[in-house]
Amino acid sequence: MASKSLIETVRAGETVYLGWVGNPDPLVAETIARGGFGAVNLDMQHGLHDPVSVMRAIGSVSAAGVPVIVRVPVGDFAMASRALDMGAQAVIAPMVNTVADARAFADAMKYPPIGKRSWGPTRAMMLTGDASAAAYLQRANGETLSLAMIETREALDNLEAILDVDGIDGIFVGPSDLSLTLSNGQVVDGDAAFLDEPIRHILKVTQAKGKVPAIFTVSGVRARAMADLGYRIIAVGLDALYLREGVRRMLEPTLDR
Amino acid sequence: MASKSLIETVRAGETVYLGWVGNPDPLVAETIARGGFGAVNLDMQHGLHDPVSVMRAIGSVSAAGVPVIVRVPVGDFAMASRALDMGAQAVIAPMVNTVADARAFADAMKYPPIGKRSWGPTRAMMLTGDASAAAYLQRANGETLSLAMIETREALDNLEAILDVDGIDGIFVGPSDLSLTLSNGQVVDGDAAFLDEPIRHILKVTQAKGKVPAIFTVSGVRARAMADLGYRIIAVGLDALYLREGVRRMLEPTLDR
Amino acid sequence: MASKSLIETVRAGETVYLGWVGNPDPLVAETIARGGFGAVNLDMQHGLHDPVSVMRAIGSVSAAGVPVIVRVPVGDFAMASRALDMGAQAVIAPMVNTVADARAFADAMKYPPIGKRSWGPTRAMMLTGDASAAAYLQRANGETLSLAMIETREALDNLEAILDVDGIDGIFVGPSDLSLTLSNGQVVDGDAAFLDEPIRHILKVTQAKGKVPAIFTVSGVRARAMADLGYRIIAVGLDALYLREGVRRMLEPTLDR
Amino acid sequence: MASKSLIETVRAGETVYLGWVGNPDPLVAETIARGGFGAVNLDMQHGLHDPVSVMRAIGSVSAAGVPVIVRVPVGDFAMASRALDMGAQAVIAPMVNTVADARAFADAMKYPPIGKRSWGPTRAMMLTGDASAAAYLQRANGETLSLAMIETREALDNLEAILDVDGIDGIFVGPSDLSLTLSNGQVVDGDAAFLDEPIRHILKVTQAKGKVPAIFTVSGVRARAMADLGYRIIAVGLDALYLREGVRRMLEPTLDR
Amino acid sequence: MASKSLIETVRAGETVYLGWVGNPDPLVAETIARGGFGAVNLDMQHGLHDPVSVMRAIGSVSAAGVPVIVRVPVGDFAMASRALDMGAQAVIAPMVNTVADARAFADAMKYPPIGKRSWGPTRAMMLTGDASAAAYLQRANGETLSLAMIETREALDNLEAILDVDGIDGIFVGPSDLSLTLSNGQVVDGDAAFLDEPIRHILKVTQAKGKVPAIFTVSGVRARAMADLGYRIIAVGLDALYLREGVRRMLEPTLDR
Amino acid sequence: MASKSLIETVRAGETVYLGWVGNPDPLVAETIARGGFGAVNLDMQHGLHDPVSVMRAIGSVSAAGVPVIVRVPVGDFAMASRALDMGAQAVIAPMVNTVADARAFADAMKYPPIGKRSWGPTRAMMLTGDASAAAYLQRANGETLSLAMIETREALDNLEAILDVDGIDGIFVGPSDLSLTLSNGQVVDGDAAFLDEPIRHILKVTQAKGKVPAIFTVSGVRARAMADLGYRIIAVGLDALYLREGVRRMLEPTLDR
Ligand SMILES: [Mg+2]
Ligand SMILES: [Mg+2]
Ligand SMILES: [Mg+2]
Ligand SMILES: [Mg+2]
Ligand SMILES: [Mg+2]
Ligand SMILES: [Mg+2]
Repeated sequence: MASKSLIETVRAGETVYLGWVGNPDPLVAETIARGGFGAVNLDMQHGLHDPVSVMRAIGSVSAAGVPVIVRVPVGDFAMASRALDMGAQAVIAPMVNTVADARAFADAMKYPPIGKRSWGPTRAMMLTGDASAAAYLQRANGETLSLAMIETREALDNLEAILDVDGIDGIFVGPSDLSLTLSNGQVVDGDAAFLDEPIRHILKVTQAKGKVPAIFTVSGVRARAMADLGYRIIAVGLDALYLREGVRRMLEPTLDR
Repeated sequence: MASKSLIETVRAGETVYLGWVGNPDPLVAETIARGGFGAVNLDMQHGLHDPVSVMRAIGSVSAAGVPVIVRVPVGDFAMASRALDMGAQAVIAPMVNTVADARAFADAMKYPPIGKRSWGPTRAMMLTGDASAAAYLQRANGETLSLAMIETREALDNLEAILDVDGIDGIFVGPSDLSLTLSNGQVVDGDAAFLDEPIRHILKVTQAKGKVPAIFTVSGVRARAMADLGYRIIAVGLDALYLREGVRRMLEPTLDR
Repeated sequence: MASKSLIETVRAGETVYLGWVGNPDPLVAETIARGGFGAVNLDMQHGLHDPVSVMRAIGSVSAAGVPVIVRVPVGDFAMASRALDMGAQAVIAPMVNTVADARAFADAMKYPPIGKRSWGPTRAMMLTGDASAAAYLQRANGETLSLAMIETREALDNLEAILDVDGIDGIFVGPSDLSLTLSNGQVVDGDAAFLDEPIRHILKVTQAKGKVPAIFTVSGVRARAMADLGYRIIAVGLDALYLREGVRRMLEPTLDR
Repeated sequence: MASKSLIETVRAGETVYLGWVGNPDPLVAETIARGGFGAVNLDMQHGLHDPVSVMRAIGSVSAAGVPVIVRVPVGDFAMASRALDMGAQAVIAPMVNTVADARAFADAMKYPPIGKRSWGPTRAMMLTGDASAAAYLQRANGETLSLAMIETREALDNLEAILDVDGIDGIFVGPSDLSLTLSNGQVVDGDAAFLDEPIRHILKVTQAKGKVPAIFTVSGVRARAMADLGYRIIAVGLDALYLREGVRRMLEPTLDR
Repeated sequence: MASKSLIETVRAGETVYLGWVGNPDPLVAETIARGGFGAVNLDMQHGLHDPVSVMRAIGSVSAAGVPVIVRVPVGDFAMASRALDMGAQAVIAPMVNTVADARAFADAMKYPPIGKRSWGPTRAMMLTGDASAAAYLQRANGETLSLAMIETREALDNLEAILDVDGIDGIFVGPSDLSLTLSNGQVVDGDAAFLDEPIRHILKVTQAKGKVPAIFTVSGVRARAMADLGYRIIAVGLDALYLREGVRRMLEPTLDR
Repeated sequence: MASKSLIETVRAGETVYLGWVGNPDPLVAETIARGGFGAVNLDMQHGLHDPVSVMRAIGSVSAAGVPVIVRVPVGDFAMASRALDMGAQAVIAPMVNTVADARAFADAMKYPPIGKRSWGPTRAMMLTGDASAAAYLQRANGETLSLAMIETREALDNLEAILDVDGIDGIFVGPSDLSLTLSNGQVVDGDAAFLDEPIRHILKVTQAKGKVPAIFTVSGVRARAMADLGYRIIAVGLDALYLREGVRRMLEPTLDR
């Protein structure tokens, strides 16, 4: 398993730069994990992962000593539980717009009495090395992170109430969707200036609640700015971009002819 | 991508005969696409596709210049969004029985302000060749088709209201289920005479609302009849049938001994 | 298909010991099926199966003459229908806590007039050998088993009402989750003494309603005890355990040095 | 396993019409098998199968009660042994041009003292149901068919000597390559008139040696002609053709507009 | 298929920068193809491709309008034929050290009378759109490139004779192995100074014979230098490097803290 | 990577009990690895692995800290090199009957000057963590084990000469094939009494040459006996057996009714 768990890193106040993977091949995720990210997210919402590919990639990335996060499809909270059973250390749920959404998400992520997660972490225990069910049970609720995506006006309106839901450990800002919803479908631009205020507001409220602030970015410069602002888990681009950028740099010296 | 988009063909008033694929191998879908269909549907409800196989088959069929439709499982509207992100040009949602069903489907299919589709068409943009997010955003709502299945008495009762939902582009008649529900489970026969009236009724209402009428058939003769009637997207059989029929014809000359 | 169907065995009052498979490789399921189980369950909740792997494993296990059950993810009733379309003889739905849950499950499992299952059993009919749709339709509702998991206090409270839902054929006790929910998250132990009473209670109520009582166990001894008590379908361990136990026995003679 | 083994059918003097499958999805092979062929060939030379897909398709086709043949890549005799270990009843080796080729092929197909096949039929015995290694060993050499492809002038010249190799059970004529090699690369046409003589010659020699004559065709009419001539295993087309033909027939009634 | 074939580009005297892919996921190859390379190589020698993954990636990359080359495992000339059947436009054979190696390679690559390639390009013809076998046959020998790797002292000694083999279209220099073999296992460094002379020598001889000179490099600067020297097909790095480089650039702005 | 390399364990004179895996799912191999074996073999000869499954399983088993061995198909020495590139620590080559066989095997396993292994261990270096090519090169020949199977009379006759081949690190006795070949096809029984003498003879000669003696067994008792005799790497059964035995033990208490 990961040399240092995600929750430990976050609790230590360190910033986690997060690799983002849409390709379902586990070796892609592992190669990215070995490139220097503090954690890797496997994307089932806009990315191309399915349950089996997620399971295999969790194994591969964990083997590289890097914690895995899984973003599940909209409203697929059953998959949130499954991701944990497969060994993910955190789950990102998109479009958590209401307290009901947050409650359903928390229920899937946490064992009783906090939530309603169902028992069966056979694969996860293989990866953690927990010898007994009791050991895993005792640690699980405290060591798995539930990150609710805030990416609509409705979610902004409900932000405090969502953060107050027991079992929600943090929020994850989706800037593209936030730009799209706040502009009523006119603009999609995660770096748009009109996002600055909500991005700061969400951060402040989340910090005040003592929960983990996280966000998506598409460049290292933006990622660094978000870290300086106070965000603690910061996604930086995605695999298609890494490939494209790597190819571009590789081909650059061949072009000036 | 497809040489001509599905929406262009439909807007031009042309009839689209639709190949239907349950097998999850992308080469099966591609071979069928190259056989002369105007579009190909990948079936996740009664067929054997899952998200990864759908993604791969969309690539293969698009490479053949043929548009792809995806039928998602009952109520799996998150998958409707994912299919679009993967490059599908249309989605068929089964069992849209109420306005609430239709609204949830439209929300998944359309970006704001029409719906609540979330942003992330990385793979689709690779296939369309859209250079900018803005370009894709501008076209997306108008060029992706949401087809709601009308296949129960409840749906018939709510037909006009379903068609009035903003973001629903057409209906797709499911004759087998319609026969099953109208007969209260006594009969399953998509060619049953008692379907003639509802099939005409649905067509008329859909045309009156200016939306796209589509239907499933299991033979070329029936498909042609539906085209003559006025349906514009008409599924003709399915892959297991193509294989079976092809084998039968091939073996015919060997049998008379 | 299976030499003897699951429903026939159960109706004959025989006990079915159930192999349990989390690994998505169809050959694992088939090898386990050939080991002597009366049926095999493919687990999509805590196990690692997805739709395509389930489809393939149903084929492999059926080829071994053994009936297949599929446990779907929490609340994924669309998958219940799909499992039947793929040739499963029974489906286990986890966390059926209310009458509404049970009704939704039954709707997905049974054709009208009992439920709302949608028509499309192409693959299943290939396995059963049914020549006509009418033949399959006539048998389907009576020969496919819907097993609702009872594994929370809420479900216990609603037990009779859940069993009264038309289309629910039996219950499946989840002892681990029952221990977890009854202890409010303090204990996870499917063999805990405090489960004895609920396990007997559920059995009695289920028998009184004339429905099928089923349960999960992790050892042959426990499985036998449940059979003696009156349970008719009894899961015994799971594939990771079979492998581990097999390896342990194999290595035993090499250890005493 | 198959209801009747391939060798039994052939020994009984019956004609076996052979389905031909290049697609690696096991369900494609199974669907074709259920369409009425006496056996199915999985093609690893010009088709798209690899070892794992062959293994899975052998399971699927065997489940349909149909015997499986595997055509291996040119010179890949190790794969011939593997195909038998996976449960194939026959292997076709392409481009067997010399006695040395035939000897190497026979060595891979037959256990000592006839050949040098290595022991390890774990999967095959699962399919045959052989309870003991001794039982499988006793039957194996007699019940697995090695079919050497005759498809070059060199092979024609060596025909008798190839047939005399102990462990070669029959020949399989490759008309396309035969046309290509006999015309020195000018023509590829498996139905060319100049093939009539060699096709009759090969048949006569093979029959005289008491071995099995087999051939590839691309139409039912040609297949029937070959059967009437005396060939006993006759391939009829291939999966891409079945699909294309099935689609063509399905779409025919829609075209005349 | 590719908008412009590889052979056309090479004949036009243009330089082809070649992407190199070890990952078996077709989407990785396609994404790289879309990044600006003139062709993409799928590596089965040191990379992780197998026949099925090669077939799928050829489809994906061709869909992007980019020609595909396949490097086969050492001595696996049967796979060279298969790669062409799957739609590859060129094949690289590693460790072609003798005239016999070259002859065997050419035999697999070219139809008679030049070689002994066996007939069966079903998949390739689907991609090229050739309507008739005759059409494909006429073009095939002239439009598929056989590139023999020169990467040992023995190969250097036999260089002229290898180039004289009919059916060998070009050579592909393997600098790493060349450094390893020339240094007798002391050094592995494809950029080593002692390679300059052999790299120039191979180029000169190849040009003199009118055949295509190709080479592997691991950086754009080196690739450009090789182009300036006169090499026409030049591999630039490989997918693991593109990913690693892309990630490094992406993370760079986050590091200086 | 593995906590302790295979070569270190063997050099320390410790006995390595070897798990044996035919199933291509990486999770099967990993679960077996975690069960207590000192190493795991992935079988491509009689087992069902192919190159991609081997690559994935090497990753999974290495993640469990257990070294991986790969048995390649007969004569497939190109795959021996590939297995090392994928991170295997040892390769077993079946049917090494002559010095020529042994030389070809050693050539594929060792870099110059010992052999002719070609450079390209991208994946292996990801697993070993070697930072530079030079570092991997320096260690590779000494830390990868080539095990030649001795399983025919011919191999017995050539035993000393095979062991004298530079680059052959040890032998691996195949008792089933040895029984089959020594009995001229009459008997297949790896525990047959007439094998005792050759098994002792091979051990003595191998020890005298200072190389590693290894052997296959199908039971823990036999494995222990071979260890006591002096064999150092001892395969114990195979995955199908582990599953079957685990199931048998699990079902035992349910049977006595
Ligand atoms: Mg979003
Ligand atoms: Mg329907
Ligand atoms: Mg449970
Ligand atoms: Mg041929
Ligand atoms: Mg090389
Ligand atoms: Mg052996």
